[in-house]
Amino acid sequence: MESTPLFQTLYFIAIIAEAMTAALAAGRREMDWVGVSLLGCVTALGGGSVRDVLLGRHPLSWVEHPSYLLITGAAALATIAIARYMHHLRRLFLFLDAVGLVVFTVIGCNVAIGLGMPTIIIIASGMITGCVGGVLRDVLCTDIPLLFRAELYATVSVVTGAIYVAGHDTGMPHDVVIVVAMLVGLGLRLLALRFGWRMPKFVYTETLH
Amino acid sequence: MESTPLFQTLYFIAIIAEAMTAALAAGRREMDWVGVSLLGCVTALGGGSVRDVLLGRHPLSWVEHPSYLLITGAAALATIAIARYMHHLRRLFLFLDAVGLVVFTVIGCNVAIGLGMPTIIIIASGMITGCVGGVLRDVLCTDIPLLFRAELYATVSVVTGAIYVAGHDTGMPHDVVIVVAMLVGLGLRLLALRFGWRMPKFVYTETLH
Amino acid sequence: MESTPLFQTLYFIAIIAEAMTAALAAGRREMDWVGVSLLGCVTALGGGSVRDVLLGRHPLSWVEHPSYLLITGAAALATIAIARYMHHLRRLFLFLDAVGLVVFTVIGCNVAIGLGMPTIIIIASGMITGCVGGVLRDVLCTDIPLLFRAELYATVSVVTGAIYVAGHDTGMPHDVVIVVAMLVGLGLRLLALRFGWRMPKFVYTETLH
Repeated sequence: MESTPLFQTLYFIAIIAEAMTAALAAGRREMDWVGVSLLGCVTALGGGSVRDVLLGRHPLSWVEHPSYLLITGAAALATIAIARYMHHLRRLFLFLDAVGLVVFTVIGCNVAIGLGMPTIIIIASGMITGCVGGVLRDVLCTDIPLLFRAELYATVSVVTGAIYVAGHDTGMPHDVVIVVAMLVGLGLRLLALRFGWRMPKFVYTETLH
Repeated sequence: MESTPLFQTLYFIAIIAEAMTAALAAGRREMDWVGVSLLGCVTALGGGSVRDVLLGRHPLSWVEHPSYLLITGAAALATIAIARYMHHLRRLFLFLDAVGLVVFTVIGCNVAIGLGMPTIIIIASGMITGCVGGVLRDVLCTDIPLLFRAELYATVSVVTGAIYVAGHDTGMPHDVVIVVAMLVGLGLRLLALRFGWRMPKFVYTETLH
Repeated sequence: MESTPLFQTLYFIAIIAEAMTAALAAGRREMDWVGVSLLGCVTALGGGSVRDVLLGRHPLSWVEHPSYLLITGAAALATIAIARYMHHLRRLFLFLDAVGLVVFTVIGCNVAIGLGMPTIIIIASGMITGCVGGVLRDVLCTDIPLLFRAELYATVSVVTGAIYVAGHDTGMPHDVVIVVAMLVGLGLRLLALRFGWRMPKFVYTETLH
């Protein structure tokens, strides 16, 4: 299914949504237009790149398809023009960001399955693909990564990946497994956003050094 | 010796100690439980991963042994439960962290020797393995890396690696070389902690731009 | 031309200038001497290393030539001694930093050409080589990367790379192309510094979350 028109479309929605989130983060830090487009590329393509570097898989997707750099850079720049209307699009935007998370996760799982990896690495590969772009964005903005503090973002990725692997192992049709994993993950993310579900925090105030 | 039960035990102590330090750092930043376990994995396994990526060596240790992800993630989570007693364990903890530093350093040197690298790269490989996990932890917590400011941490790694390489080159028995390098490194680190030995600082207040 | 004495000299000037900039950044953060030399190595050699890791090209330059680690580490340490005179050398320093940017860019383009990469990746490779070292320096100092906020730094790299690729494609003599690309890039950078040319900023004050 990964090469079907639907999945390709979802992938482009995912990288564009990620690039646009990054552009808004760049604007909050008053970066210039070059910074905006670079942060867009890194955020949208960084998760897949880190996954491939860690798994020793070359060429990276954007090296094979350089147009991805242009698409994500352009999406980030376009965000500057439409930023004033973004708050009207807030819900659409969070929805597309959630779509991006589950699409990236499924792609990452699938890459690891193709390499014959064990279950834990398949799920980790999905999570790295889904979440590391946002971590790079936050580090480059000198924020503590939202992933480490926020509402069920990594958890959604793990759940999506676990359903995908479980379905894959039971021999269900591939397309069905993908659709179910993505819908459950998407639903969980939207419920977490709607009801403000969060992981408990760990607060520690002493220093060892 | 790297595959002896003693060395395996030391390696597990090292990754668990690193994951626990990371958990406390996460708690100081009020991360959630997911953030705590992710930061634990990255800190404990990041040094070896960066080394292998830079040296082009695959698969990474945790890709080959996915249980390392579970062990370090679990050690970080367990830290939440026992955090209130950690200050009683302060000395034990700093001791285990120092053990981790020298064990990681020796492992890193050994990897580079196995790849036929020259002396400088062997020592660099040991230092990257020993120190980069903590750098990643600090960057993800938006702290300036402790490594760049702290008491003889990198220096201990360089000294340990230099002794290991020198001993290796003189043809002394491998096990003896490892034990001597680790004991000297460990002693230096504990003395540095005990007496507050530090590198001189460089203070520069002007800007060029 | 990359292996001519002139180009070798330019490369050494480039890595030394980058290591010295990094040392001053380290001094502004009151790092210790170990931190100064490590930050020097990472800044000077980090751009080329990230490029090679992303392109799957091994061994990295400093693994093949370990002396690069010693040279950049030593240049950073030497900066501590001469820091008090640095403001007299401000112009020379900014000039050498600009030389470094265009030299790194041309080297990065050339590496990608040697791998048979398409145009966009050649230019991206030049920009990664020229700019990522400074990004790593800023991240390790917990600054928002200057690259994302500053006067035509990345732009200079893109312009240099584009001229290099265009010249290369039209079959002009290689040495002429390199010299023209570097001179135009250098001129643009110096004009940007002289007249304070900057990219427009994107300022966004709302939050989506």
